[in-house]
This record gives sequence, structure tokens and C-alpha cells, in this order.
Amino acid sequence: MNEFYNKDIISIKDYNKEQFEKIFEYTDKIMNLDPAARREICKGKTLSYLFYEPSTRTRMSFESAMASIGGNSLGISDISSSSTQKGESLADTVKIMSIYSDILVLRHPLDGSSRFASEISSKPVINAGSGTEEHPTQAIQDLFTIKKEKKKIDGLKIGIIGDLKYGRTVYSLLSALANYDVEVHLISPESLRIRSDSIYEIRKKLSFTESTDIEEYIEDLDVVYVTRIQKERFPDEEEYLKVKGSYVIGLDLLKKMKDDSIILHPLPRLDEISTDIDNTKNAKYFQQAEYGKHTRAALLGLILNENGF
Amino acid sequence: MNEFYNKDIISIKDYNKEQFEKIFEYTDKIMNLDPAARREICKGKTLSYLFYEPSTRTRMSFESAMASIGGNSLGISDISSSSTQKGESLADTVKIMSIYSDILVLRHPLDGSSRFASEISSKPVINAGSGTEEHPTQAIQDLFTIKKEKKKIDGLKIGIIGDLKYGRTVYSLLSALANYDVEVHLISPESLRIRSDSIYEIRKKLSFTESTDIEEYIEDLDVVYVTRIQKERFPDEEEYLKVKGSYVIGLDLLKKMKDDSIILHPLPRLDEISTDIDNTKNAKYFQQAEYGKHTRAALLGLILNENGF
Amino acid sequence: MNEFYNKDIISIKDYNKEQFEKIFEYTDKIMNLDPAARREICKGKTLSYLFYEPSTRTRMSFESAMASIGGNSLGISDISSSSTQKGESLADTVKIMSIYSDILVLRHPLDGSSRFASEISSKPVINAGSGTEEHPTQAIQDLFTIKKEKKKIDGLKIGIIGDLKYGRTVYSLLSALANYDVEVHLISPESLRIRSDSIYEIRKKLSFTESTDIEEYIEDLDVVYVTRIQKERFPDEEEYLKVKGSYVIGLDLLKKMKDDSIILHPLPRLDEISTDIDNTKNAKYFQQAEYGKHTRAALLGLILNENGF
Repeated sequence: MNEFYNKDIISIKDYNKEQFEKIFEYTDKIMNLDPAARREICKGKTLSYLFYEPSTRTRMSFESAMASIGGNSLGISDISSSSTQKGESLADTVKIMSIYSDILVLRHPLDGSSRFASEISSKPVINAGSGTEEHPTQAIQDLFTIKKEKKKIDGLKIGIIGDLKYGRTVYSLLSALANYDVEVHLISPESLRIRSDSIYEIRKKLSFTESTDIEEYIEDLDVVYVTRIQKERFPDEEEYLKVKGSYVIGLDLLKKMKDDSIILHPLPRLDEISTDIDNTKNAKYFQQAEYGKHTRAALLGLILNENGF
Repeated sequence: MNEFYNKDIISIKDYNKEQFEKIFEYTDKIMNLDPAARREICKGKTLSYLFYEPSTRTRMSFESAMASIGGNSLGISDISSSSTQKGESLADTVKIMSIYSDILVLRHPLDGSSRFASEISSKPVINAGSGTEEHPTQAIQDLFTIKKEKKKIDGLKIGIIGDLKYGRTVYSLLSALANYDVEVHLISPESLRIRSDSIYEIRKKLSFTESTDIEEYIEDLDVVYVTRIQKERFPDEEEYLKVKGSYVIGLDLLKKMKDDSIILHPLPRLDEISTDIDNTKNAKYFQQAEYGKHTRAALLGLILNENGF
Repeated sequence: MNEFYNKDIISIKDYNKEQFEKIFEYTDKIMNLDPAARREICKGKTLSYLFYEPSTRTRMSFESAMASIGGNSLGISDISSSSTQKGESLADTVKIMSIYSDILVLRHPLDGSSRFASEISSKPVINAGSGTEEHPTQAIQDLFTIKKEKKKIDGLKIGIIGDLKYGRTVYSLLSALANYDVEVHLISPESLRIRSDSIYEIRKKLSFTESTDIEEYIEDLDVVYVTRIQKERFPDEEEYLKVKGSYVIGLDLLKKMKDDSIILHPLPRLDEISTDIDNTKNAKYFQQAEYGKHTRAALLGLILNENGF
């Protein structure tokens, strides 16, 4: 029996390096299967999605992953516009969704929502983003992208740039990276620095620097992971405008970077990465989205098949 | 040829006991089939849904039913948010949907809408809730749940509690029960009593009591069917608050109930049933939702296959 | 290799008569295949739809076409209600959608949007309506309907009636008809006449008359193509009311028409065609919708299969 069978995916903190490697191995396997064989993996299985925050991109990544392995999807893509909720509790909605499907994908604004849902659900639950810190399948996608594009993770110098305070993606990625021997540089405006209480545990296993200057380490980085800086995070538009331009990856900055460095982004992007970069060999953010589909397909396949695939 | 083949499901009043038993038999068959065999039943068939009132739950029940028997679904989940309607008539929309699919599932606020649609549609129409009285597939699901959990329907004492005035579910259930030899007790606030004109016909075949006191018959009931009491039904919030607490099923009340009584609810529930009840052996409302998926799958299978399955 | 393989469908102007005939031949083939064989054509393939303007009808036509040939669909049915867009560019959204699917169907209010998308997408793009002039799959559907119902296109007298100024459908149909030897009569209120700059090229190949009087040519027409006259197009409601009644096809007008004339409409219809007409042998607008599903299935099949099907 494979260790992921019938299990939830709640927190990136529940996984270790060996487990990540297993997921990567199965992702490679999926990518190498011919489409007809791939569609046997979850043939006739149904995924349900339940999104308390809309995220078209994440929903479609799961839907396309499920379709690629022969399954289908149904659900609620934006509960706020679903007049039917009529005040029903998360617990009841989860119970019903787990009746209608073989696996439940949940996005919810509250920390702990997925753990709670998994205790109630009769089917496995995948956390597709919850609260301020957890987006485990995004972190797995990010690790896999680094592994595929750099051929390794250990030993790399990784810069994470932008809004480090509010994005759950960053916290999940840091937790994931804490399983590897990497050098991390966090670069953000002062007001968007990482929340220290949220990385209390991570800090024990992962050493990193913090700075506000994107140029400080840029020439050493193997991986440049960029996140959106959202205007609405700033109480003062003045400050936003002051800060914004300093965290943009453009051709000038690219020239200072290592020739074989890669640029990642969880997407959607606004203008943190200039479109000039898109056609350079360093730009890997669209590739990253594609890997995301395959890592999710691998996870679904592992969870829904006792003996793997 | 099976008698449901290519037929509409418009009103629960169109069915008799023998037909219900046939549907139950096929529902049992579906539940016992292995998933691969089940997916052959409507392989490659398409269901379209057309919801003039949103109902995520009913839509997903049909979608998951259709997926379980190998079909797929498409449609309009909330026509009010569909800017494309551009004033098109129900008749034209139904004609088009019946071109795009093999069977049409319609929810509409007006009485008679499904009958009207069925006259226009080139494909069978299933009423997924119309007007104030009809929700035939819900009633079939309810009957099936009673049959499975109590091993019979005839001879049972059935209490129906809550808002009996506005819920179409209650009227459909009463019509369905009128085919059986049951003793029905209707329990509701004075202002939410059953509409007497709507049960004129039912009254000829089914005898029932009406009361406002939930405790009056509670110890005799085999089935306790609970419905939501919606705040918006009361012109006066005061009255709502006065009444609300009196129709809640909690552990205290459960103690007074027969040991083998079952509690049902069409869901979603607000607080008419305390969550303490959920893990008791009497709570069958989530099981009821699961049966709903299978009864709908059986109906779809019967309608779309000339010789049954 | 078939000439449509892996190609975009951007503008109706890119096609000639021979290509239309090829599409018609494959549409006939699809219509004659048994359902199981038909579902092999795009088995396991995924279509993504990206609608910047909602169009339930066009989306469902593509979805049902894809389902009929064994594929599945996912996407964004109304981007304005998709909170996730967060300001992402069309280019990035298209790139992502093309990762999640085998073919992308785009509706967008701007001229040139589909051409632009096709340059960016790694997968073929189908224009499902863009700007003021292009809706190529609608025009193909219209031509096919004429061909099937009149057994020919060359030599026919075709009237196009209603709002000729704003509807992209009309411009695409005229471009398509310019490949045939037909006599076209454009009939509209003065304020909704065809935009002369938009038909500069068409005029070189297609001769037509323009008039405001629906009765002028009505008895000669083989095809009467009716479009909606939308109230919101008139600055002045008075004028709308004055004009509206004059462009309605009713039984009186039908009596003046050729016995074997056919009436078409891209739908949805408001009251431009009286419902009295629906059951006459001349009414072919619902048939037209059905042909639309099959022409789209043929196009999808040709684009996604190197050697056709």
C-alpha cells in the first residue's frame, strides 16, 4: 500500500524529503505515460471542489489534473455567490460534498479549516489554500519545478521576493524548503517582511537572511521566486508607489543574475516580472504552472489508488 | 421496455406504490453494482441542468449521480447571474438545452413550469423543484431512505416538523406517503401550518393530525422528518425568536423518542437539529443525501435506457 | 495531414468555399456516426473556455459538442465575476489556459483578441466571438444550415433582417457568403444599417441591396435570416417602439414568402419571430442550433486529429 493512499493533504509541514521525492517520482511517471494509460489512473473517479475564496487558477489546475487521469470534477467555485448556502455550516457542506465525490478539494480563508474538514469528511481532503500559511500543493509544485529545472534542490541559493507578509504561498514554500539544505534570502519592502511568529518553527531548520534590497544577493541566486505586491496591502498609496518599482524583475536585473538562474512565480502576475523576461531561458513560471497540473495529478493518483499507479 | 423509458418526471402525484417499488429496486441494483459496471449505464450521455433558482445541493446531487453512471453534465446553475439570457423565453431556452443534451433537469419558481417544459422539450425533463409543491426526486429519495432504514413504509408513524407552509419538499413527501398506509403527524408553529388548499387531494388518501407541540406525539414516531424554519418567513422577528427554539431536535428530545426512530432532513440544516444528534444511530439525514444520489442515478438510468439496466 | 490540424479558427475571412465544403463533409460524417464511435474522436481531450463576455449558449454549444466526441470542458464562463483575475493580462491567462487544455475557446469584446491569443497560446485557439465583426463558428453553422436545408448555397436569394449594425454574427455571415454566388438583401431600420466601413472588402465579392422595407423582397427570398433588435441600441425609446414592430416575422408575412423558404436566427430570439412560426415547416432556427453543435464537433475533431477522423 502506498503511504498516501486515502490520506488527506492538509499541511506542508506533514511531509518530509523522502515523501516529496516519492511524489516527484510519481509526477515524472505521469508525465511519461501516454495519455490513454494516464486516463486509467482515476478513471470514473469524481473530485469535488469547495472554494470559500474564489481561485479560478487553482480550481482549473485541479480540474485539468483530474481530467488528465480520467476523472471528473464538480463543485462550488465561489461559495459567496452560491445563494444556496443559506447559512449551512462548513461541517455539513463538507459531509455532503464527500458523499458526492471520491475526494474533496477545499479552499477556505481560515487557518485550520482543512484539518477540521478532514476530520468530518468521509473522503480524503486536499487543502487548496487555507488561512495565511498553508497551500501545500503549491509548495509541492514549487519544489518539483526547482528539482526539474535545477536537477537538485540541496545546495541551491533561493531568493524569495515581494510580499512575504500576506502570501500563504511563501510560508508553505519555506516550510517545504526547510527539508532541504538550501540558502534562502528573503527580500521585501519593510512593511511586507515575513511574519516572525509564523516562521518560528521553520527558523529552527532553515537559515535565511532578510533584506529590503533586491540587488544585495541577486547575483548569487539560483532560484528567484517572485510574488505579487498587492496595492491593497498598503494603508497608504504613496508608500505603495514608492515601493512597487523596486521589486520588479526586468532585463536590467536579469543581466546581474546567474546565467542559469531560474525565475519562478506562483501567478497570477501583475507587473512584478516584466513581460520582456517571458521569452528568456530563465523564465520558468509558465513551466511551473504546467508542473503544477502534473504534481496534482500525481497526488490525486496516489491518494485514490491503494497500490499507486 | 421499462415504463420510465423516455418519460418525464414532473409531479410526484403521477406515481403509485408499484412504481416507487420499481425505482427502489433499481436503486438497490445501482448501489450493488461495481463502479465500472455502473459507469456503463449512461456512458457518454449528457445531462443539462437549467436552474432558475440556485440550488447547489440539488445540482450536485444530479451531477454526481450522472457521473456515477458514466454520463456528464453541463448547464446553467443560476440563470439570474447568466447575462446571456437577454430576455429569452423559458420555452426557447428549454428547446436549446434539449438539443445540447439527452435529458434536462429543471428548477423553476413557478408551478407548472416543468409540465410546460416537458411539452416543449424534445428530451425527457426532470423536475428538480418547481413552485410551492413539487420536488418529486426529493420525495423519492425520502421514501427510499425510510424504506431502507425502517425496512418498510406501511404501518409507520411519521412526524413532519417545522415549516410546513412554504417548503415544497413537505407537499411532495405527503403526496408520496399518500400511497402508503402510514400515520402522519404534522407539527409546526401556528403561522407555518400546512396550506389546506394544497393538500385537498392528499387529505382524501392520507390521514394526519396537526399540532404545534413537538412533544405531543414524539414518543410514538418511527420517522421524524425535520425541515428548516427560515427567519425570512416571519413578518416579525420577535415571533421568529419565540417559535424557533421549540422546533429543535436535541439530545433531550431524542431521549423521549423511540430507540429505533430515525431522523431525516432534506438539508441544508440550520439549527433545527442539534449537531449533538449527528453521531447518534438515529441520525439518517446524511445517509438520506447519499440515497438521493443513488435514487437519481436509478431514475436517470431508467429514463435513458429502453430496457432498464 | 488534414489542413485544419493544430490550426486556429480566428476569422471567417481566412476560409474559402473548398474549406467550408470540407467542414460540411466532416459535419455530415459526425452526424452519421453512432454515438460510441463519435466519442472516440476526441476521447480524453480537454477544451478550455475563456469568456470575457458571457454567452451561455455559445459555451454550451462547445461543451456539448466536445462531450459528443468524448472530450471534456473546463474554464471561465464569465471573467467579470471571476474575482481571481486580479488584474492578470489576457496574455498570461491564455498561456495558463493553454497549459490546462488541448484547445482554447475564447470570447472577448475586442477585435483582434483571438489573433493575439493565438500568437501566445501553445494550443489552438477558436474565436467564439470577438469585437464587432467576428464569430466564425456561428457563420460556419449558418452556412451549413443553409446547405443542409436548401441542398445548395449558390444561386440562393438571402435576406438578412434586423440589427445589421451591431451584431457580429451578420458581418461573419456576409464574409462567409461572399464565397458563394448568392443574392443578398439587407433589411434594417435606417439607424441599424450595416456599417459600410466594415464591409468594404465584402462588397468587392458580394453584391447586395439595402432597404428598410421588409416586404420589398420577401416573396423572392429562399433564406430569411433574422436577428434581434435590441432596445438598448436606440438612444430614444420612442424610436425603438416605432421601428420594432416592422421587423417581426409573423404568419401574415410568412404567407407572402416562398413556400420552401427557410427562416433562420442565431438565437436567442426576443419577439422578432412570432412563436406562431415555430411549428411551421419554414422555421429552421432550432435545427440551426443543433447543426451548430455538430459543426463545432467537426471543427474540434479536425483540429485535434492529425489525420481527421
